[in-house]
Amino acid sequence: MSITTVGLDADDTLWHNETIFRLTQARFAALLADHADEAAMGARLAEVERRNLRLYGYGVKGFTLSMIETAMELCDGEAPAHVVREILAAGREMLAHPVETLPGVDEALAELAERYRLVLVTKGDLLDQERKLAASGLGELFAAVEIVSEKDRGTYDRVFTRHGTGPDEAVMVGNSMKSDVLPALEAGAFAVHIPYHVTWAHELAEAPENHARYGTLDRIADLPAWIAERSAG
Amino acid sequence: MSITTVGLDADDTLWHNETIFRLTQARFAALLADHADEAAMGARLAEVERRNLRLYGYGVKGFTLSMIETAMELCDGEAPAHVVREILAAGREMLAHPVETLPGVDEALAELAERYRLVLVTKGDLLDQERKLAASGLGELFAAVEIVSEKDRGTYDRVFTRHGTGPDEAVMVGNSMKSDVLPALEAGAFAVHIPYHVTWAHELAEAPENHARYGTLDRIADLPAWIAERSAG
Repeated sequence: MSITTVGLDADDTLWHNETIFRLTQARFAALLADHADEAAMGARLAEVERRNLRLYGYGVKGFTLSMIETAMELCDGEAPAHVVREILAAGREMLAHPVETLPGVDEALAELAERYRLVLVTKGDLLDQERKLAASGLGELFAAVEIVSEKDRGTYDRVFTRHGTGPDEAVMVGNSMKSDVLPALEAGAFAVHIPYHVTWAHELAEAPENHARYGTLDRIADLPAWIAERSAG
Repeated sequence: MSITTVGLDADDTLWHNETIFRLTQARFAALLADHADEAAMGARLAEVERRNLRLYGYGVKGFTLSMIETAMELCDGEAPAHVVREILAAGREMLAHPVETLPGVDEALAELAERYRLVLVTKGDLLDQERKLAASGLGELFAAVEIVSEKDRGTYDRVFTRHGTGPDEAVMVGNSMKSDVLPALEAGAFAVHIPYHVTWAHELAEAPENHARYGTLDRIADLPAWIAERSAG
């Protein structure tokens, strides 16, 4: 058994992302404080996002449109213009937000890139994800970048076949049990869960039980050792 | 000299797209008829789109956000809520719009797919472009699909190297002089311009003069013969 290819999720695995969504959402709740309390607002926004996912997919632009739609619903169709303007501005700020890599990412990726083919596998807006990768300074370490509309078993099968030696000799690493871990295991790859301190409601799922190819780590700094153990075994 | 790979643009080359944007824009102008005439509105929208391109990239979601922003500007920051709701609805309708392939596309692509590797090369929203390709029924004819954030010389160099035998033995086909023809010629590929009856202002550019690898066709039905002539030469 050898591992040749390491797939890495981007948002909340390599750099902060969900915290920026949460901050924007708090700002949105404050704007609408006269119309709904924060919990009711959050529930309604989640519902609108879920309804729009099929049309908008993942990313900041769809999130911005869903915030405007939620504001309309919470205000009986009559959201004040200044609320809409603030939401537009918040969306643009998210798209221009500086990229802050998570602790230990630079070192771990530099070490891994010497031994394995690194492939970035991420959802979200195409241009926004490319911008963040460029801003992170990590771009040169990746042999390939796949920005995908969905992460399922077929995605990992295709990506690890195209850019590596198949899922059997690959490991997928990310913060989402639902998108990074479970479908990668289904495809026959190894999978490592590195939790982020907050998770988007749509990405929550149960951990696999007693799966030989599954691991969980607190910090990405421990990833090179984890992979080396499996690769040698 | 042989041609092994045919790159095809999607919107307005394989199926109608710009007409749907124009219809939505007419609807948008009607909504704001009390605030600006259609020409002034169109000019302002184009300006907002240009300003946002760096953040939003191409596609329906960014267009929808730019329409809302334009409505705000034309109404001194106080666009009526019903206008915003109508724009949101128009954006969702665009994303759910049926795909109508252009005349002759199915036959031409079926013929080309027997001799060459077909690669779809398109800008726009990731999920939306995947949806349209699936709905077009053309998906099986393509050896590869590349949804990209920008079409420049480097894009074609990379795409035709990855999915073919390099730009030297490839031809790019599309309705945009600026995005499909000129950068593909720069990369060393052949390029065929098949104009659509309307072109987005941001995609206009001059045709190349006396370029040996450039051609223009009125109909995609003539494409197989055009390529066969160059490939034999």
